[in-house]
Amino acid sequence: MAEYKAPIQDMQFVLNDVFKADQLWASMPHTAEVTPDLVSAILEEGARLCENELFPINRSGDEEGCTWKDGAVTTPTGFKDAYKTYAESGWVGLGGDAEFGGQGMPKMLTVMFEEMVYAANTSFALYPVLSAGASLCLLRHASDELKQTYLPPLYEGRWSGSMCLTEPHCGTDLGIMKTKAVPNDDGSYAISGTKIFITGGEHDLTDNIIHLVLAKLPDAPAGSKGISLFVVPKFLVNDDGSVGERNALSCGSIEHKMGIKGSATCVMNFDGAQGWLVGDANKGLAAMFTMMNYERLSIGLQGVGLGEVSYQSAVAYAKDRIQSRAPGGAVQPDAAADPIIVHPDVRRMLLTQRAYNEGGRAFAAYVGMWLDIAKGHPDAAEREKAEGLVALLTPVAKAYFTDRGLDATILGQQVFGGHGYIREWGMEQFVRDARIAQIYEGTNGIQALDLAGRKVAANGGQWFEIFRTEIQTVIDELTDEQFAQPLRDALEKLSDATAFLLDAAAGDANAVGAASCDYLNLFGLTAYAMMWAKMAQATAGKDDDFHRAKRATASFFMQRLLPETTAYHAKVKAGSESLMAAPAELF
Amino acid sequence: MAEYKAPIQDMQFVLNDVFKADQLWASMPHTAEVTPDLVSAILEEGARLCENELFPINRSGDEEGCTWKDGAVTTPTGFKDAYKTYAESGWVGLGGDAEFGGQGMPKMLTVMFEEMVYAANTSFALYPVLSAGASLCLLRHASDELKQTYLPPLYEGRWSGSMCLTEPHCGTDLGIMKTKAVPNDDGSYAISGTKIFITGGEHDLTDNIIHLVLAKLPDAPAGSKGISLFVVPKFLVNDDGSVGERNALSCGSIEHKMGIKGSATCVMNFDGAQGWLVGDANKGLAAMFTMMNYERLSIGLQGVGLGEVSYQSAVAYAKDRIQSRAPGGAVQPDAAADPIIVHPDVRRMLLTQRAYNEGGRAFAAYVGMWLDIAKGHPDAAEREKAEGLVALLTPVAKAYFTDRGLDATILGQQVFGGHGYIREWGMEQFVRDARIAQIYEGTNGIQALDLAGRKVAANGGQWFEIFRTEIQTVIDELTDEQFAQPLRDALEKLSDATAFLLDAAAGDANAVGAASCDYLNLFGLTAYAMMWAKMAQATAGKDDDFHRAKRATASFFMQRLLPETTAYHAKVKAGSESLMAAPAELF
Repeated sequence: MAEYKAPIQDMQFVLNDVFKADQLWASMPHTAEVTPDLVSAILEEGARLCENELFPINRSGDEEGCTWKDGAVTTPTGFKDAYKTYAESGWVGLGGDAEFGGQGMPKMLTVMFEEMVYAANTSFALYPVLSAGASLCLLRHASDELKQTYLPPLYEGRWSGSMCLTEPHCGTDLGIMKTKAVPNDDGSYAISGTKIFITGGEHDLTDNIIHLVLAKLPDAPAGSKGISLFVVPKFLVNDDGSVGERNALSCGSIEHKMGIKGSATCVMNFDGAQGWLVGDANKGLAAMFTMMNYERLSIGLQGVGLGEVSYQSAVAYAKDRIQSRAPGGAVQPDAAADPIIVHPDVRRMLLTQRAYNEGGRAFAAYVGMWLDIAKGHPDAAEREKAEGLVALLTPVAKAYFTDRGLDATILGQQVFGGHGYIREWGMEQFVRDARIAQIYEGTNGIQALDLAGRKVAANGGQWFEIFRTEIQTVIDELTDEQFAQPLRDALEKLSDATAFLLDAAAGDANAVGAASCDYLNLFGLTAYAMMWAKMAQATAGKDDDFHRAKRATASFFMQRLLPETTAYHAKVKAGSESLMAAPAELF
Repeated sequence: MAEYKAPIQDMQFVLNDVFKADQLWASMPHTAEVTPDLVSAILEEGARLCENELFPINRSGDEEGCTWKDGAVTTPTGFKDAYKTYAESGWVGLGGDAEFGGQGMPKMLTVMFEEMVYAANTSFALYPVLSAGASLCLLRHASDELKQTYLPPLYEGRWSGSMCLTEPHCGTDLGIMKTKAVPNDDGSYAISGTKIFITGGEHDLTDNIIHLVLAKLPDAPAGSKGISLFVVPKFLVNDDGSVGERNALSCGSIEHKMGIKGSATCVMNFDGAQGWLVGDANKGLAAMFTMMNYERLSIGLQGVGLGEVSYQSAVAYAKDRIQSRAPGGAVQPDAAADPIIVHPDVRRMLLTQRAYNEGGRAFAAYVGMWLDIAKGHPDAAEREKAEGLVALLTPVAKAYFTDRGLDATILGQQVFGGHGYIREWGMEQFVRDARIAQIYEGTNGIQALDLAGRKVAANGGQWFEIFRTEIQTVIDELTDEQFAQPLRDALEKLSDATAFLLDAAAGDANAVGAASCDYLNLFGLTAYAMMWAKMAQATAGKDDDFHRAKRATASFFMQRLLPETTAYHAKVKAGSESLMAAPAELF
C-alpha cells in the first residue's frame, strides 16, 4: 500500500547544509527573522498535517471525486474538515505578505511545504495553492483597496482563489479569447464569457471564491496585447468585508478526468458578473504571469511530491515483497524467497526515482533561493541577477520536475508489478495525478519554448551565461573528481547546445521549436547534476546512513542518468529539417 | 475525439514491399496457399470489424467496465454482440491449426490483425487473444483427446481460454506457488488453490471457459521444476462435446484497475476442480511458456495498436485545432490562428509516435516471419536459426513495443493539451490501457532479464551473433548512406554493449540485471533502426505521398530518436556498482 512520511531530514539537509539558508536569510531584511528553529518547527508541523490529515483522504478522494449538482460542487468526504484545519493553522498564508496577515516565510521554505502537500494529496493541494498564487498576483498588481478587501481572507483561507484563462477555443493562444469586460458606471466592469478547465472554480471549502479573470475591454487591441485582468468574486463583498449577494457567475459543469479527481475542474460561466480591474488595462497577461510563474514552480513541486510518495511506497514494497533469489545467491536462505530489493533492476528503478526526487527538491530550493533574493536582497545587482535566473529557471523547474515526476511515479508503479495496476494499492493514482502537471499551467512543450525562445534565444543567452557561471563556480569548488568530471562534461554539452541554438535561431524560424524540448531536458539534467554535485560535496566527512545514501545516489545519478545528456545534445544539434520536411498533408 | 482507421496500406507495404511475404509463403508448404489477394481480403474484412464493431464500444466499455455479482461477470454493453460477430466470422481461429478447424494463417498476417484489434478495443482484444494463446498451448502439448475436445470450440470462439499462473504471493517467482493438483482415480486431477490477476477468468461472452492452470502435484520437486499444467474447464465437457455440469471453480471477485476496464481481471478459486494434465508432469512451466511466448508478442502488439490509434487521433486534432501562429509566419492568415501541426514541437511528438508505431509494426512482422519459418520451413537449418531468433527477439518485442507504446500514447495525449486529460476525449484511456502491457505477461524488467540473461549471456551471444549478421546483411544492401551510417553506428554500439555484457556476466552476478533494461532499449532501438532502414530502402523510386511520408519518418527516426543509443550504451557500460553499492537499509 502507499505510504508517506514527509522527508524532513532531507529538506533540512538541502536548506542548511547544501544552501546555508540560515546565513542567506539572516543577510536580508525581509527574512531576518527566519531562524533554523522556526523552520524546523514549521516543517515538523507541516509534516504532521500532511501525514495525518491530508494523506488519509487521498485514495478515498480519488475514488469518490467531486460532484456537481445545480451549479454547486461537493468535494470528497473529509476535504472540508481537512481544509478547515489547514486554513485555521495559517498554512494558506505561509508565504503571504505580513502586512495583510500572511506569515511572510521565504520561498525556500514554502517550496518544501508545498512539496509535502502535493505528495500527501495533490487534489487537495490545488485549492490552497491557487489561493496563494492569486494572492501574490493581487499583492503585486491590485489597488490598495482591492488588496485590503481580498488579501486577508485569502491568506486566512476563509476565501479561495482561481485563475480563469482558458476558453473552449483557446488555451495557449489567449490572444483570441472572447470573454468581454464592459465598464459599469461605478468603475467596475461587467464580465461575460465562458472559461473552461478552471481548477477550484467552484467548491464547498470556503465562504467565497475570488476569480482572477482575463477578459477583453470593448476597445481593446487585437491579440495578447488587448487582455485585461479582473478580480471577480463569487459573492460580492460588503463594505464591512462580509460576504454579500451572489455575483452573476456560475459553474456550468465539472470535467471527468484521468486523475486529480478530488480537485474540481470547472466550466465557469460569467453572465455580466461584476468585476474590478487589476493593474492597467490591456496589461492583464503580464499581471497574470505573476500568478502563473508562481503556479509554474508550484506545479513543478507536484511532480516532485508525487515522485516522493511513489518512491517511499515502492521502497517499502521492495523490502517486503519476497520473490525469487538474489543474483548472487540467497540473502534470506530461510525464507521462501528474497525481498525484491536485492535485484539490480529493481534498484535501478528505485534509485532513479530517488535521484529525480532529491535532485528536484534541491533545485526547487535553489530556484526558491533566487526568488527570495530577487524579492529583498539589499544589493540591487544581486536582485537583478536573481530576476534573470528566476526567469530562466522557472520553465525548467515546471517541465523537468513534472516530466521526471511522471517517470518516477511510473517506476514506482512498476516496482509493484501487477499490484501497481490495481486501484486499491494506490500507485496508479500517483501516475494519473502526476500526468496533469505536464499539461496545465502551460504544457511542458510551452515551457520548453519559453526557455529556448524567450529566456535564452531572445536575449542572446545573457541569462544562460549567468547560470553557466554559477555552475562553473560549483565545479571549481568541488573536491571530488567523480562528481566534478561529469558535471563539467554536462555543462560543456549544454553550453555547446546553447551556442548552437543561438546560432540556428538567427537563421531558422523553426530552430527554437525544433530544439526546445530536448534542450530543456539537457538543461534539466545539467541542473540536477549541479544539485547532485553540491549535495555530494555537502556530505563530506559525514558517514551516517543518511549521508552515505546521499553519496550513493549521487554516484548513481552521475553514472546512470547523466549520460542521457549525450542523446539530448545530439537531438538538439540535429536541427529542424527532419521535423519540417514533410508538409502537413503527409501526416 | 479519438478516431481509428486500420492502417492497411502500411500493413501491406510491410508485408509485400519490405519483407516480400508472398515469396516466403509460396516457398513453404504450410503457407503455400496464402496469396496476396487472400491477405488483402482478410486485412480489409478485419479492418471493417475493428472500425465498425469494436472501436465504437471502446470508450463506453471503459466508462461502464465489467461488473461482478455472485460469481458472475458481466462485460460492458455491446461486448457480447461484438464478440458473437467476431467469433462467427472465424477470427478467433485465424492463426489456428486447420486440422482442428483453425484457419491456419501465418503469424506475419495475424500480428497485423491483432494490432488492429488492440487499437480498436484493447479490453475486448484480450478475450479472443487469450483463447488463441491457450489453443496454441494445447495444440503443442496436450493429448489428442484433449485437443479433439477443446480446440474446435476454442477456434470457433464458442469457448474461450485463460491462463492461471499468478497467486497472491507469487507472480514472477512461480516456483513458490501453492495451488495443488491431487490425482483422482479416473486419471484426472483435483485442483485446489487461488489464482489472481486472471484475465478473462470469468465473463459472459462464451458458453465455456477453459482454464490452463499451473499447479503442483503432491510429490512434486520444490521450485519451478515441480510445476505441472492442467486444463480445467469452467463446465465439464460431456462425451458428445456438449457443455456439462459446472466444475468446482468460481470467480471470487474482479479487480478495479487503472485501465482495460472492459477486460475482467479475476480472482479464481479452484476448490477441487476437475482438471487434466497437459504434457508431462512437472514440465508445466515449459509448456505454459508456449502460451506465454505467444502472448508476449501479442501483448507487444497492444503497445503498437494503442500507439497507432493515439497517433491517428492526435494528427486529426493537430490539423484541426487552431492556436497561435507558425514560427515562420501565418500559414492561414485569414483564420484566427494556424493549426498546431505547424509547430516543430507538435511535429516532434507526432513523428515520434509514428516512428514507434511503424517501426514496431515492421518489427512485429519480422518476428512473425521467423515464427512462420520456425514452424514450417523446409530447411531444418533455417528452422533452427529461426527458433533462435524468435527466442532472442520475443522479449524485445514485448518490452520495447509496450514501452514505446506507452510513450506514444502519452505523446498523443499531450498533443491534445488540456483536452487530453478529459475522459470524454478518449486520449487518456489509451495511456491507461497501454500501461498494463508493460506489467503483465512478465514485467518489462523480466523481459529485459530474459533477453540479457537467458537469451544472450547464457549462450555466449550465439543467437545475438545470428541477429547481428542479419543486420549486417541489411546494411550491406542499403544504397542510401543516410540510413546505412546510423544503422552501422547503432549496431556497433549494440555489439560493443553485448561484448561488455558477456564479459561482465562472467565475473559479476549482478551484471546481467544491472545492464538488462538499458541493454533491451539499446537492442530495441537498433532493431527499429534496421526496420526503418529496410522500409526506407523499400520506398526507392516511389514518390507518392505514402512513400514520401515513409522516407520522412525514416529520416526523423535516424536523426532524432536513434541518438538515444549513445545514452543506453553508456548506461550499460556503467556496470552494476552504482546500483549495488548501498545496502538495502539505506533505501
